[in-house]
Amino acid sequence: MQELAVYTTLLEDEITRLDFPKTPSNLYDPLRYFMQLGGKRMRPILTFLGAELFGLKKEAVIHAALSVEVFHNFTLIHDDIMDEAPLRRAKETVHTKWNQNIAILSGDVLFVKAFQLLAKQDPKHLADLLNVFNRTAQEVCEGQQMDMDFESRSNVTIDEYIEMIRLKTSVLLGCALELGAIVAEASLDDRQHLYDFGQHLGIAFQIQDDILDLYADPEKFGKQVGGDVIANKKTLLNLKARELANAVQVEQLNRLETEQDLILKVAQTRDLFSDIGARIACEIEMQKHYDFAMNSLKQINVADKNKQSLIALADFLMQREN
Amino acid sequence: MQELAVYTTLLEDEITRLDFPKTPSNLYDPLRYFMQLGGKRMRPILTFLGAELFGLKKEAVIHAALSVEVFHNFTLIHDDIMDEAPLRRAKETVHTKWNQNIAILSGDVLFVKAFQLLAKQDPKHLADLLNVFNRTAQEVCEGQQMDMDFESRSNVTIDEYIEMIRLKTSVLLGCALELGAIVAEASLDDRQHLYDFGQHLGIAFQIQDDILDLYADPEKFGKQVGGDVIANKKTLLNLKARELANAVQVEQLNRLETEQDLILKVAQTRDLFSDIGARIACEIEMQKHYDFAMNSLKQINVADKNKQSLIALADFLMQREN
Repeated sequence: MQELAVYTTLLEDEITRLDFPKTPSNLYDPLRYFMQLGGKRMRPILTFLGAELFGLKKEAVIHAALSVEVFHNFTLIHDDIMDEAPLRRAKETVHTKWNQNIAILSGDVLFVKAFQLLAKQDPKHLADLLNVFNRTAQEVCEGQQMDMDFESRSNVTIDEYIEMIRLKTSVLLGCALELGAIVAEASLDDRQHLYDFGQHLGIAFQIQDDILDLYADPEKFGKQVGGDVIANKKTLLNLKARELANAVQVEQLNRLETEQDLILKVAQTRDLFSDIGARIACEIEMQKHYDFAMNSLKQINVADKNKQSLIALADFLMQREN
Repeated sequence: MQELAVYTTLLEDEITRLDFPKTPSNLYDPLRYFMQLGGKRMRPILTFLGAELFGLKKEAVIHAALSVEVFHNFTLIHDDIMDEAPLRRAKETVHTKWNQNIAILSGDVLFVKAFQLLAKQDPKHLADLLNVFNRTAQEVCEGQQMDMDFESRSNVTIDEYIEMIRLKTSVLLGCALELGAIVAEASLDDRQHLYDFGQHLGIAFQIQDDILDLYADPEKFGKQVGGDVIANKKTLLNLKARELANAVQVEQLNRLETEQDLILKVAQTRDLFSDIGARIACEIEMQKHYDFAMNSLKQINVADKNKQSLIALADFLMQREN
C-alpha cells in the first residue's frame, strides 16, 4: 500500500511535534525517546481511515489519532516492565535504559497525554470519544491481566485465549476506527459495524501472528521463527494442538516441551502441529474472523468506493510475512 | 468539623458502590481492597465544597468528586511501588499483598476509572473538567518525579522543594475545588481564586506536615515522631536548617545525620533546628501560604456565609496534631 506513506509521514511529523516539557527530564526524556522508536503507526492510520470512510478529512481527527498512538505507547512501556523485556523494536526499553520507577511514572504521564490530545477534539464529540476510549482502555488492561494470568495456568481454553487477544490488542483497532467515525458523525449503526470490522480484523491478525511465528519463511520473517515454541508459550496453535491431539500425540507434545535441542524442538513441533491439524484449525479460525470483519465493513452505509482503502489495508495486513 | 461526617458518609457509600467487574480478579480485587482502606476523603469533600460555595448541591458533582478520589488512590498505588512501601494506612500495599505487576496494572485501570467517572458529569462541562483534571494529573506526575530526583541530589533549593510539594500534592486540592466550581458554572476569575485557595492551603498543609513530623506531641501524633529525621529526608525543616546554619551548626547537622542512637538523633536534631531558627522559618513560610489562601478565598464573588464551610475546613486542617 503505497498510500500509507502519506499517512505515516504526517504522523511522524506530528509525533515529533508532541510538546513534552523539558523538565523533569527523567520524566519526559524517556517519552521523547520512546515515541520516536517508530512502528507501523497502524492505529492512528485507522482513525484517519475511519474518518475518511465517511467523507471527513484526516486532519479533522489528528488529535484523536495521536491520542490512540500515545495510549498504545503507554501500554507498551508498562507491558515491557511487566514482561521484563529488555528490547522493543531492537532498542532498549524504558525500564532498561532508565529504571523501573521512571518507566512506571513516564508511562503514567504519557497516559495523561493521550487524554489531553483527545480533549483537543471539538467538545461536541468529547463525551462520545471518551466513552469509547475509556471502555477500550479498561479492556486493554483486562487483556494484559488475562495474558499474565495465563502464564501460570495449565487449563486455558480456546475461548479464553480468543477473548484475551480480543481485549489485549483487537479492541484498540476497533476503537481507533470508531473515534474517526465519531468525529465524522457517522450513525450509531455504522460506528458499530466499523468497530466490529476493526475488532475482528485485529483478532484475525493476532491469529496470523501466532501462525507466522512458527510457519513464516525465515528469510522474510523479522524475528526468530519458533520463538513462541521455544518459550512454551500458550498460543492458539498450541491450544488447538492440545485440543486435537490423540494420546500418542499428547505424549509427543509433552516430550517436545522439554526438548533441549531448540532447532529440533521447533522443527518437530512444527511438523507435529501440522499433523495434528492445529495449523489448519488456526487458519480456519483466522478466516472466520476475517470474514466477519469484511462482512461488517460491507454493512456500512457508504458508497463502495469509500471502502477501498480499508479493504486494501485489510489485504495488506493479512498478506504480510513479517 | 462535625459536618464533615455528612460528606464522608455519602462518599463511603458511593465508594462501596463503585462497580468494579468480578474478573479478571487479579485486576479488580486489589481495587476493591485499596479503595476501602479509608483515609480522610479530603479531596472529594473539596469538590463538594467547591460546588456548594456557588450554591450547587453536592449531589450534582458526585462523579467529579469520586473521580478525584479515585485518581488520588491510583497515584498512591503507583507511588507505593516506587517508594517500596510495605504498608499504607497500616495495611499491606497492593504490590506487597499481590505483586508488582498487578499493582502497576490495577493502578492503570483505576486511572481509567477516574476518567470514566468524570465523563459521567454533564457533557457541557466535560471539556473544562478534563482540561483542569488533565493538567493536574500531569503536574502530580511531575511532582512525584521531582521527589524521586531529590533523593539523589544534594543541592535541592527551597524554591525547588516548594515547587515539588505544590505539584505532588497541592495542585490536586486546587483541582478538586475547581471541578466543583466548573459544574456550578462559576466565573473564570472565581474558579482561579478558588484554585489558588486550594493550592496554597495545600502547600501550607504540607509544610505543617514537615513540622509536625518532628515537633508533634507523641501522644497525639498518629505515627513515629521524627521519622523524616531518622530517614535523613530532605524536608523544608532540613533545607531551612542547612540554609540558616553557621559553620559550627553545619558540622553538628552533618554529625547528626550519621548518629546511630535514633532517640538521641531525633532529640538533638529537634533542638538544633529550633536553635538555628529553621522551625520558625518554616512556620513563617507556612503562614505565608495560609494567608495567600485565605486572601484568595476572600476575593471570590459570593456572600461571606457561603465561605464559612471552607474557612472552617481550613482551620480544621491547620489545627490538627496528627
